[in-house]
Amino acid sequence: MYRRRAEGVKEEIDFVEEIFREDAKREVNRVLDLACGTGIPTLELEERGYEVLGLDLHEEMLRVARRKAEARGLNIKFIQGNALDMSFEEEFDAVTMFFSSIMYFDDSAIRELFNSVKRALRPGGVFIADFPCWFYGGNDGPIVWDERRGYERLVITDWREVEPAFQKLHFKRLVQIIRPNGETKAFFVDDELNIYTPREMRLMAEKYFKDVRIYGNLRRSLAPSDRRYWLVAVK
Amino acid sequence: MYRRRAEGVKEEIDFVEEIFREDAKREVNRVLDLACGTGIPTLELEERGYEVLGLDLHEEMLRVARRKAEARGLNIKFIQGNALDMSFEEEFDAVTMFFSSIMYFDDSAIRELFNSVKRALRPGGVFIADFPCWFYGGNDGPIVWDERRGYERLVITDWREVEPAFQKLHFKRLVQIIRPNGETKAFFVDDELNIYTPREMRLMAEKYFKDVRIYGNLRRSLAPSDRRYWLVAVK
Amino acid sequence: MYRRRAEGVKEEIDFVEEIFREDAKREVNRVLDLACGTGIPTLELEERGYEVLGLDLHEEMLRVARRKAEARGLNIKFIQGNALDMSFEEEFDAVTMFFSSIMYFDDSAIRELFNSVKRALRPGGVFIADFPCWFYGGNDGPIVWDERRGYERLVITDWREVEPAFQKLHFKRLVQIIRPNGETKAFFVDDELNIYTPREMRLMAEKYFKDVRIYGNLRRSLAPSDRRYWLVAVK
Amino acid sequence: MYRRRAEGVKEEIDFVEEIFREDAKREVNRVLDLACGTGIPTLELEERGYEVLGLDLHEEMLRVARRKAEARGLNIKFIQGNALDMSFEEEFDAVTMFFSSIMYFDDSAIRELFNSVKRALRPGGVFIADFPCWFYGGNDGPIVWDERRGYERLVITDWREVEPAFQKLHFKRLVQIIRPNGETKAFFVDDELNIYTPREMRLMAEKYFKDVRIYGNLRRSLAPSDRRYWLVAVK
Amino acid sequence: MYRRRAEGVKEEIDFVEEIFREDAKREVNRVLDLACGTGIPTLELEERGYEVLGLDLHEEMLRVARRKAEARGLNIKFIQGNALDMSFEEEFDAVTMFFSSIMYFDDSAIRELFNSVKRALRPGGVFIADFPCWFYGGNDGPIVWDERRGYERLVITDWREVEPAFQKLHFKRLVQIIRPNGETKAFFVDDELNIYTPREMRLMAEKYFKDVRIYGNLRRSLAPSDRRYWLVAVK
Amino acid sequence: MYRRRAEGVKEEIDFVEEIFREDAKREVNRVLDLACGTGIPTLELEERGYEVLGLDLHEEMLRVARRKAEARGLNIKFIQGNALDMSFEEEFDAVTMFFSSIMYFDDSAIRELFNSVKRALRPGGVFIADFPCWFYGGNDGPIVWDERRGYERLVITDWREVEPAFQKLHFKRLVQIIRPNGETKAFFVDDELNIYTPREMRLMAEKYFKDVRIYGNLRRSLAPSDRRYWLVAVK
Repeated sequence: MYRRRAEGVKEEIDFVEEIFREDAKREVNRVLDLACGTGIPTLELEERGYEVLGLDLHEEMLRVARRKAEARGLNIKFIQGNALDMSFEEEFDAVTMFFSSIMYFDDSAIRELFNSVKRALRPGGVFIADFPCWFYGGNDGPIVWDERRGYERLVITDWREVEPAFQKLHFKRLVQIIRPNGETKAFFVDDELNIYTPREMRLMAEKYFKDVRIYGNLRRSLAPSDRRYWLVAVK
Repeated sequence: MYRRRAEGVKEEIDFVEEIFREDAKREVNRVLDLACGTGIPTLELEERGYEVLGLDLHEEMLRVARRKAEARGLNIKFIQGNALDMSFEEEFDAVTMFFSSIMYFDDSAIRELFNSVKRALRPGGVFIADFPCWFYGGNDGPIVWDERRGYERLVITDWREVEPAFQKLHFKRLVQIIRPNGETKAFFVDDELNIYTPREMRLMAEKYFKDVRIYGNLRRSLAPSDRRYWLVAVK
Repeated sequence: MYRRRAEGVKEEIDFVEEIFREDAKREVNRVLDLACGTGIPTLELEERGYEVLGLDLHEEMLRVARRKAEARGLNIKFIQGNALDMSFEEEFDAVTMFFSSIMYFDDSAIRELFNSVKRALRPGGVFIADFPCWFYGGNDGPIVWDERRGYERLVITDWREVEPAFQKLHFKRLVQIIRPNGETKAFFVDDELNIYTPREMRLMAEKYFKDVRIYGNLRRSLAPSDRRYWLVAVK
Repeated sequence: MYRRRAEGVKEEIDFVEEIFREDAKREVNRVLDLACGTGIPTLELEERGYEVLGLDLHEEMLRVARRKAEARGLNIKFIQGNALDMSFEEEFDAVTMFFSSIMYFDDSAIRELFNSVKRALRPGGVFIADFPCWFYGGNDGPIVWDERRGYERLVITDWREVEPAFQKLHFKRLVQIIRPNGETKAFFVDDELNIYTPREMRLMAEKYFKDVRIYGNLRRSLAPSDRRYWLVAVK
Repeated sequence: MYRRRAEGVKEEIDFVEEIFREDAKREVNRVLDLACGTGIPTLELEERGYEVLGLDLHEEMLRVARRKAEARGLNIKFIQGNALDMSFEEEFDAVTMFFSSIMYFDDSAIRELFNSVKRALRPGGVFIADFPCWFYGGNDGPIVWDERRGYERLVITDWREVEPAFQKLHFKRLVQIIRPNGETKAFFVDDELNIYTPREMRLMAEKYFKDVRIYGNLRRSLAPSDRRYWLVAVK
Repeated sequence: MYRRRAEGVKEEIDFVEEIFREDAKREVNRVLDLACGTGIPTLELEERGYEVLGLDLHEEMLRVARRKAEARGLNIKFIQGNALDMSFEEEFDAVTMFFSSIMYFDDSAIRELFNSVKRALRPGGVFIADFPCWFYGGNDGPIVWDERRGYERLVITDWREVEPAFQKLHFKRLVQIIRPNGETKAFFVDDELNIYTPREMRLMAEKYFKDVRIYGNLRRSLAPSDRRYWLVAVK
């Protein structure tokens, strides 16, 4: 869903390094990258000389990350674990969370996340996470598309439902698999995300961090029509 | 903009009385109605036996309110004043603010408002305010319509701009007045409102009040697809 | 489709009683409620002191209606029957038909309905039926949504087709039931309704009734932008 | 608004002749063409051998029509007059009204029109009029376009408002004339039309004529999705 | 997809004959009609006195064409064959290709087509083909509709995908067949067409033909807002 | 209209250098930058060590460009001139044209441009120009927005018209200036651009250059859904 073109990672890490220099209250060396996935930003940070630890819930993602690290000759550690349940105590100068992953955390999980991240940071360390602007309310009309898979055809119907009052976003997908003789099987998958506004991200983070800023995309300020935001919170 | 049909006032005050009974931590007798406008809910509350004081910024609104009170034989006090700058000290059992007026207050004004309201409430008293759900982002296409005024024609263009990052909503109106000989005059007016989500209204109010709830419309609970909300905050 | 929130029934019956008082040419005591469904307005009329008879095609609806009547201690009669084939002769002061049910009758059925209703009414009695404004022409894009039912997922696709020349409205629904192993069953249901304009409802009713009016919603007059109408026809 | 490409006139008159042959109850020789405008169908009918009289409210339209007739060597009579106020008594075998002109007549005018046409027709004669299908309700977003006129620029804003309950259609146009130095003049024009459905046209005409049919476009039957209709009413 | 109302064929062949007279550099007697389908324009040409040969890939189309020719007493030859692989050498005065069939040919096939057509034409002979204007880019939302087939219901989902860079248009259709007991079968079909602009059709044809023109629809000129085009290329 | 964020220039010039290395048939040292405007890419090329000459029609643009060059200590030549009327003879290894400026040239001007560019290039030199994908046909609904300028208000209406058959794109803007007393002035401006597809750009360029490729955006290949294209033509 939040796939990111590898080409974009360089300018994102440029922006993150600018935050390290300008907003963190200590020099940044050790970085914890939460929800690191297959390690795209993790590896970029390591290559720029930081000492990075990548953490993700999914072992199969980490396997890909480790293979990529090896191929690039990087000695970087990727561990399986839950961002809400970490035992790090003041070990990192910065904690990052890319790919809008913060949307997977609801109101109460986000409080646990902030606690967990705060504990992992050294004093003056910085937490950085990006999140998008979402339209509130309304359902998106279905999009239908298809794919060929050997002799089978997949017909995929995607739609999206928003609960405005609860600020939940549901991505729904119906996959129909059609054999040449017309026999069909179908699968249904969905994903639930949490919608946050810049103001409420700031309000929630201020309960845990000393200095909280919301930036627009790849720029250390916020413009009225920005559609992607970066939470920057200093311990 | 937030005109309200007089017929609806009865069921809104039914709902408000239910909140008085079920959520307030003291019996409600004295009520302060902020941004009371021409007094539609103020008069309804008075008629149901509460002792109500109406406050509004605009003297011309209050004149209408006083005239209506007189016509209905009600001895109710309407005073001109700013909700952010009131000197009441623990004088009211409840403070109400209808017509989505809370959208006129931005982040810092709303903090002053909560302070000011809290001071005016007696312990256990309740603050009630309604606000709508707004789509974030995107501009609404212009709507063009016209009106006849004597020999002149008015052509009115209305549109709406949202600043997603700052959560501002701008209503804009261009009025063009056309004389029969083709001479034109034009006027431009706009209005700036603040968009709040249920979650951020709760987060902000929790800093000032003991018990904060967000209800859906005219129902003491919140459903996923609600589009109008009621802030209920007990001192 | 024309589900109605029970909360709205009170103001609809207020409006119906206003019509009883102002438009009927006789005092209203006995009321026949056609297409009464589960009896929401039927029960409300009975509770306000009218002697009401509820009639519906569907026995399973009437069973619910009878149970609700019993629970509220009302001695009200619900009978199964076809509104086009009633043998009542001048037995009622008023006949009502709510929930836009009149849309189920096409051109020729509506003539039978008017005949049947007219026979059932006493002289000066009134027939009241509501119906909506519909956009003519165009098909509505499909809406897709889903529901969980035990281990199965239901994926429902709804769409709507209008035949502008014949003024027919088709609601269509495809229900796909998906087992965890991908096996699917599907059902297709549709419903055909008739679209009437205020003008043609008046023209048709004038052939059967003495005094015919079309009102807007819950108001004894018609405004240019009204979207729901009430047929009021006096014998 | 209802401009019609001259190329289309031939197939329309083919269709009208088919109606003359198949639906009229007498041979058609003398034809009265109401709201004939600049005479496009009037001339075509005359050229096919009918004896035609063209009638229109607007003298400037008729002047164009007479000039065209002269150019084509046709001896055809065009007179200025009101279709509602004609003194013809059983003089014509057919009366035609093209260009959706029937939309200019409201409920009460259309009754006068039917009376007036009926009087002008000989027994068994036929009245033919076309009218379109209109979407009910909703406003069309404005369309803005411009034209150059010497040194001036015209900026034209067109929009459309529908009153669903009254079945009125308003076409509105704002013309702004801009001089090179920025001085502007503006003019506002509008036009009010009446929206009729096939069913109500039939219901209204049946009160005046013996045999009434509604056809689809250029075909002597009606299909569900037709969007243009022809009223055919035999005296 | 490009079904054409039989009524329209007469004015299309009027237009084609105008091109024969005005643009061809030789008298037109023998005509080759490519992708003739069931022969609608082929038969019309034959009836107007040309000596026509119909060619199509699909034998089942040709069977229908031959039956229609027989029914109308026309002695016309329909042969199965591929327009890209014809062995005609300077045998025809004109080659026609209707129904936007030219969209089935991609960049390289269209070059073969032009070669093949050029070889079949006598010097001064003319090639005529129509093609539509297509919006570039964007996907069309799905349209869902249904049909009854005995006890089965067919639910059909149609959508359209455009590849802007490659100027390909994909029509996609999912047919779901639903038995009364809920059992379903599904079939998926798609069709790939090529989008051409007036300018590029001219540029490509100029490499093979001496005189190339692009006309608007049924008119020997091109207007800015035309949406259907006719390629006219003289050998 | 084709404003470009200075931040993007680096990756565009990265891409252009890749084309210099991979596609040009000679080493690139001297570069001619046509329609250079205020010199954003021109300066970037110079800073990377190329010997660049900037050319533009508008002296006021060039003044800005020269000032920027001076500020950055670059000794770069900017000359006023028309790209269609240049007297360079085999002087450059590469010619560039950014900002979709090629859209300002119509069919016949683009032929002159290709001739003029070809003459200016040394054998094996490369011409590079970017252009966007445009939707063909249809008008865009007006966008209305406003700006404050001292005591005046500007209300701006923007719309767009496309001529599908001629592949022209018109941008239109109405600026209304409103004084506080309602007096208005208005100005109207428009701009005409030419729409090209990837296929026709290739077809036209192939008449003048030896090796022509169309790339997607910042990538030396073309993907089906690309919306911005780069013409690369080697002499």
